[in-house]
Amino acid sequence: MDCTEVLSAIDSATSIALISHIMPDGDTMGSALALYMHLRAAGKEAALFCEQPVPPTYRFLSMSEAFRLPGTWDPETEPYPLVIAIDCSDLERLGDCRSIYDRAGRTVNIDHHISNERYADINLVDDTAAAAGEMIFTLIQKAGGTVDNPMAEALYAAVSTDTGNFSYSNTTPSTHRIAAELLGRGIDVYSLNNILFRTHSLGRTRLLAMVLSTLEIHREGSIATLFATDDMMRQSGADESETEGMINFAREIDTVEVGIMFRSRGDGTVKVSFRSKEYVDVSALAQSFGGGGHTRAAGCTVQGSLEEAKKQIMDRLLPMMERSR
Amino acid sequence: MDCTEVLSAIDSATSIALISHIMPDGDTMGSALALYMHLRAAGKEAALFCEQPVPPTYRFLSMSEAFRLPGTWDPETEPYPLVIAIDCSDLERLGDCRSIYDRAGRTVNIDHHISNERYADINLVDDTAAAAGEMIFTLIQKAGGTVDNPMAEALYAAVSTDTGNFSYSNTTPSTHRIAAELLGRGIDVYSLNNILFRTHSLGRTRLLAMVLSTLEIHREGSIATLFATDDMMRQSGADESETEGMINFAREIDTVEVGIMFRSRGDGTVKVSFRSKEYVDVSALAQSFGGGGHTRAAGCTVQGSLEEAKKQIMDRLLPMMERSR
Repeated sequence: MDCTEVLSAIDSATSIALISHIMPDGDTMGSALALYMHLRAAGKEAALFCEQPVPPTYRFLSMSEAFRLPGTWDPETEPYPLVIAIDCSDLERLGDCRSIYDRAGRTVNIDHHISNERYADINLVDDTAAAAGEMIFTLIQKAGGTVDNPMAEALYAAVSTDTGNFSYSNTTPSTHRIAAELLGRGIDVYSLNNILFRTHSLGRTRLLAMVLSTLEIHREGSIATLFATDDMMRQSGADESETEGMINFAREIDTVEVGIMFRSRGDGTVKVSFRSKEYVDVSALAQSFGGGGHTRAAGCTVQGSLEEAKKQIMDRLLPMMERSR
Repeated sequence: MDCTEVLSAIDSATSIALISHIMPDGDTMGSALALYMHLRAAGKEAALFCEQPVPPTYRFLSMSEAFRLPGTWDPETEPYPLVIAIDCSDLERLGDCRSIYDRAGRTVNIDHHISNERYADINLVDDTAAAAGEMIFTLIQKAGGTVDNPMAEALYAAVSTDTGNFSYSNTTPSTHRIAAELLGRGIDVYSLNNILFRTHSLGRTRLLAMVLSTLEIHREGSIATLFATDDMMRQSGADESETEGMINFAREIDTVEVGIMFRSRGDGTVKVSFRSKEYVDVSALAQSFGGGGHTRAAGCTVQGSLEEAKKQIMDRLLPMMERSR
């Protein structure tokens, strides 16, 4: 990774804005925070921007209260000589922070997405990095900065969340080598993992109980379905975002090839998510209903009641599974 | 880690028995398999022993079919010049494989438990290692052996299971550095993680639905309880071992300090498990019912019905929580 241009841009700027992407995740938050702490330690004026508030999960990170939300800035009176977008594959991902970006003297794009559009004056893009956090770690090292304990916590949050705790296929030897360096800064791995991966609301736990009780098995165990309704959401008190990941309880059953989650909504539509393991192309299935996604993870929206949606999906999936075996 | 004695014992032996501990886990299985593959590659005659069959989760590992069970050997006619116990803190952990160990010409003990009893002729004990797998990796490197892909898979299974996928407090920089080396051997991290951590039986999933539906919250969300009965076990078809880990769904609720799981049994006893987060010493609670454990994870058995057990526990826990705040 050649950081020369980015480092010299940072060197010559007195004041630097860092932007995290919309619907912020651990990588964009942790990476921006670590770079922010590094810049301040290096005597720079720096500011953090994001369209949305820091998600509760990441509020334990040092300095997370420094993120500024729309309404707290006036880009006309506050132009930055240097703006760095972090973990943003395109300019859409900046959301309302575009107003800061567009008035920058110079722009930098630090990202690891293969789809990155190289939209800035200086583009530091490494699609072999599992997380922007890996790149920020390397950047700080090359700048001669010290990664202290709070920075290591932020970078650990970045790297571990983007790799599913070192379990996704984007995890590389380099990911683990960087994790080794971060652990060397004395971070409390057990507490961090409890915060990042093992904390759920009561509402989410109640919803999970309800959703799991809807489990149905089809085709000799090769298909498992779950569903959630508006009633279940209301009764449990769970947030819509908390349905995320529940489909995995269907997919993780040993005999299952395709896991399906139906989310029936009051407006007469059903959001359908698919996960497959080895041989069913669920993106083709989703596309046939006007949706899309990847071969092993896809989704679509179907008109009608829950029962109608189930029937439509199964009528198309069953013959597909016969063919694709 | 000074491996000199172990390496010279291996060098001078023509035939070597490796023993994994009773109730085998990923570390004892993966470590023994990797060492077995190394010894064979080095031209040694080697054999693998364990009192119990390889758990289904680990049967995908190369050579796992080589493990021999009691009844397949006669220690009188098959004495080994060298026997190596792997991941066994004391001789009890060898179970029936003791008969092989006791007739050995020489014995080696390779382990990472702090409680290790140094019972062998040569004891290679490193309690800073998160897993025996870390030690075996180092041993093979020092022996000048090549860790190939199947050996890396076995060692990854060993290290990742003993560290809760790099999340427990035993995880060190060295753990991640070794993981980096293993990933460098081209192992498929995503598939391995799916097999090791994300595969459950239909029975377990059904039982989880039932157990979560028993969720009760006490003391403004600071206590969460779950239970399982014999009826639920029968109806779900789950194995007794599959109740393991379900208590975490209680502990992981954000407001919860103490998670409790009751397993009421037909014999009129209730097995009670406790997990706490920050300030309740659940081992003291468990001890007051004749049980034991650690400060944050403990258990006991109580006489009576489920309702009686719940009442007894809550009657003692509530005042404890008042005091310990």
